[in-house]
Amino acid sequence: MVRAMKIGILVVGDELTRGMIADANASFMARAFQEEGWEVSFVVLSGDGGEDIATALHFLLLRSRAVVVTGGLGPTADDRTTESLARALGRGCYLDKEVLRWIRERFAFMGFPWTENNAKQAVFPEGAEPVENPVGTAWGYVLEEAGKIVAVLPGVPSEVKRLFPEGILPRLRRWFSGTGEGPPRRTVKMFGLSESRIDETLSGVDFSSLGVSLGFYPRFPENHLVLTARHTERAVAEEHLARAVERVRECLGKYIFAYDEETLEGMVAALLTERKKTLAVAESCTGGLVADRLTDVPGSSAWFERGLVVYSNASKEELLRVPPSVLREYGAVSGETARIMAEGVRSLAGTDLGLSTTGIAGPAGGTDLKPVGTVFIAVAGDKGTVCREFRFRWGRRRVKEISAQWALEMMRRYLTGG
Amino acid sequence: MVRAMKIGILVVGDELTRGMIADANASFMARAFQEEGWEVSFVVLSGDGGEDIATALHFLLLRSRAVVVTGGLGPTADDRTTESLARALGRGCYLDKEVLRWIRERFAFMGFPWTENNAKQAVFPEGAEPVENPVGTAWGYVLEEAGKIVAVLPGVPSEVKRLFPEGILPRLRRWFSGTGEGPPRRTVKMFGLSESRIDETLSGVDFSSLGVSLGFYPRFPENHLVLTARHTERAVAEEHLARAVERVRECLGKYIFAYDEETLEGMVAALLTERKKTLAVAESCTGGLVADRLTDVPGSSAWFERGLVVYSNASKEELLRVPPSVLREYGAVSGETARIMAEGVRSLAGTDLGLSTTGIAGPAGGTDLKPVGTVFIAVAGDKGTVCREFRFRWGRRRVKEISAQWALEMMRRYLTGG
Repeated sequence: MVRAMKIGILVVGDELTRGMIADANASFMARAFQEEGWEVSFVVLSGDGGEDIATALHFLLLRSRAVVVTGGLGPTADDRTTESLARALGRGCYLDKEVLRWIRERFAFMGFPWTENNAKQAVFPEGAEPVENPVGTAWGYVLEEAGKIVAVLPGVPSEVKRLFPEGILPRLRRWFSGTGEGPPRRTVKMFGLSESRIDETLSGVDFSSLGVSLGFYPRFPENHLVLTARHTERAVAEEHLARAVERVRECLGKYIFAYDEETLEGMVAALLTERKKTLAVAESCTGGLVADRLTDVPGSSAWFERGLVVYSNASKEELLRVPPSVLREYGAVSGETARIMAEGVRSLAGTDLGLSTTGIAGPAGGTDLKPVGTVFIAVAGDKGTVCREFRFRWGRRRVKEISAQWALEMMRRYLTGG
Repeated sequence: MVRAMKIGILVVGDELTRGMIADANASFMARAFQEEGWEVSFVVLSGDGGEDIATALHFLLLRSRAVVVTGGLGPTADDRTTESLARALGRGCYLDKEVLRWIRERFAFMGFPWTENNAKQAVFPEGAEPVENPVGTAWGYVLEEAGKIVAVLPGVPSEVKRLFPEGILPRLRRWFSGTGEGPPRRTVKMFGLSESRIDETLSGVDFSSLGVSLGFYPRFPENHLVLTARHTERAVAEEHLARAVERVRECLGKYIFAYDEETLEGMVAALLTERKKTLAVAESCTGGLVADRLTDVPGSSAWFERGLVVYSNASKEELLRVPPSVLREYGAVSGETARIMAEGVRSLAGTDLGLSTTGIAGPAGGTDLKPVGTVFIAVAGDKGTVCREFRFRWGRRRVKEISAQWALEMMRRYLTGG
């Protein structure tokens, strides 16, 4: 039953089986395993009860070469993961004095009052190797059990985001591959094509002869494509990866807006910063979402001058000098209005660039000629004004989201000449 | 091992075990079960492979009185849930002609081309009762197996959100409780107190004598408290629930902003609509997020006049008439500036109410006197101007989120006189 490189994931916590919160750790770790070329056997979510943890652990160990456990490592009485695992594996526990000293120092450093129950976080099953937590007080650990490996982490997602790639994944790699390094990989972020169209467009490319595998990660309204290269020699893998990415760029370059950790708003920010350009935004149907995304970028005050959410016709006239005759003749939702909005906010804010959106997000307000989902987006700058019309389906929130995405993408293309 | 009312959840899909997307169905259904007074034994995420589905089903059936399965009911080759379940339970399959006709009609109605593989969605295990899908073409079904119940739904979250409460939950209720109705419940939505403070404040209230149980659902930055009343007579349960909600209101009324499906922005919208008041917003540190949330409410154009994202000092001076001397003397991040922003946007937009935010979202820009996380929020209206200063911890995005929440909450309190 058990093939090589199968990993089970056990997520512990009553808050999960009671539906109080949704688990975020399993998909985060499963994606990392996938990118390593390993397979997840099963993910099991269990309550905090000791018997349940043991049952789930045995189920997963039987069907996997390694099991990664998150949750239940805190100081309180309902944190029972360590004692339950130790009992399930027929082991005792030990107190690690080094770790205890480290935890006490961390508490002192952060100015938190020390309570004795925190000593529990320095207790590990016999034979376990503690793994330092760079962002919290609960350490993780790994142990070997009958030729398999069990790795344990706390359940706080922000701690998993650090402890897992920094402390656990390198140990699993050494275990599975004899090296602490993962295969080289690249994430290509695209927008404007469906997953099936991307798949179709790439169907002619022979990635497997390069030893490169593809993973699709839809993140509405974006599509993320992860390329992973495998070869016994890292330099060769890296070269194959570069060639594969080049192929994707040849086929889909127009739809690629960023790589790896970059975001669309971050790309727009980088382009504006590099070119020393400033931007002002006038939004109708997106209702502030474009400004919200742009101002998520640290330091955006250097290039983001202002944003106007011009919901009323009066505000369009007063703040952007859209002539009442244009609103009457073409309507607030029109290419004419979008252009004047982008040009108006640019000239009144005195910025290099102006960006505008106007449309019908729904559910009401649609007509036969301009149904719900009709959106106009315009960019104004020294190369003139560009305007596009869109017809989106979906509900109000998604129309706002995809309109904001297109607004940022049109700005990116304007800046790059794309 | 198996106690009454234990339910297992099986979520099927390679996209989950590969970490392509995070599962949203398990926590949605687990919360519903919790509110019914039932317990989730385990949640298992399995790939699309037939053997894996069978393994997970047997694991859950052994430890539960019912198992709910989502995913793998589509028309394509990797949708193997039905055939795998049937084989695992030693049953054949049948084609339901009524369901087939219904699916064909649905395709014709939606103008989708019919392909023969869609007939697969009318195939069910022997003995299964099909359950109509109100929003898709894949029907669900329920079947009895050795005194237990297995319920199956497609995996698309928007379909689960309808088919589960409308088609599956009533059947589970009849199975478990002999009635299609769930216990009466109420969600109390709070903001401004931590979960532990809410818990502490309510510790003196005897909910159990009323047969009312509490569930906490943290939804940053909100806290949702679900009260569920159980009694053999529904009228009594409803009366007990009302009394328990009244107790919560007495203890925590100030922090309650909404009930059940209501949202904070929806409450502000309802208050404005009811009182025929209009609103304009001037945002600095929230960068458009307040406007974005307000314009998520359908019909917001009736009362949302405009929003200004005044990131530069020039825009604060030009659009809001904040005097340069105030910016010089007190700074852009100050109570003085926040007040003038709220009053300025109100008077210039000609609205009944003005709302403003200004602060340091970070990571840069903090000083000793005004560290990162310092935020001023003001409301201006015919009752005068109210301004509050906040010091938030957390990173840039969360500072924006909690500031936007406080801005909406201050507006709500201003309107209700709270």
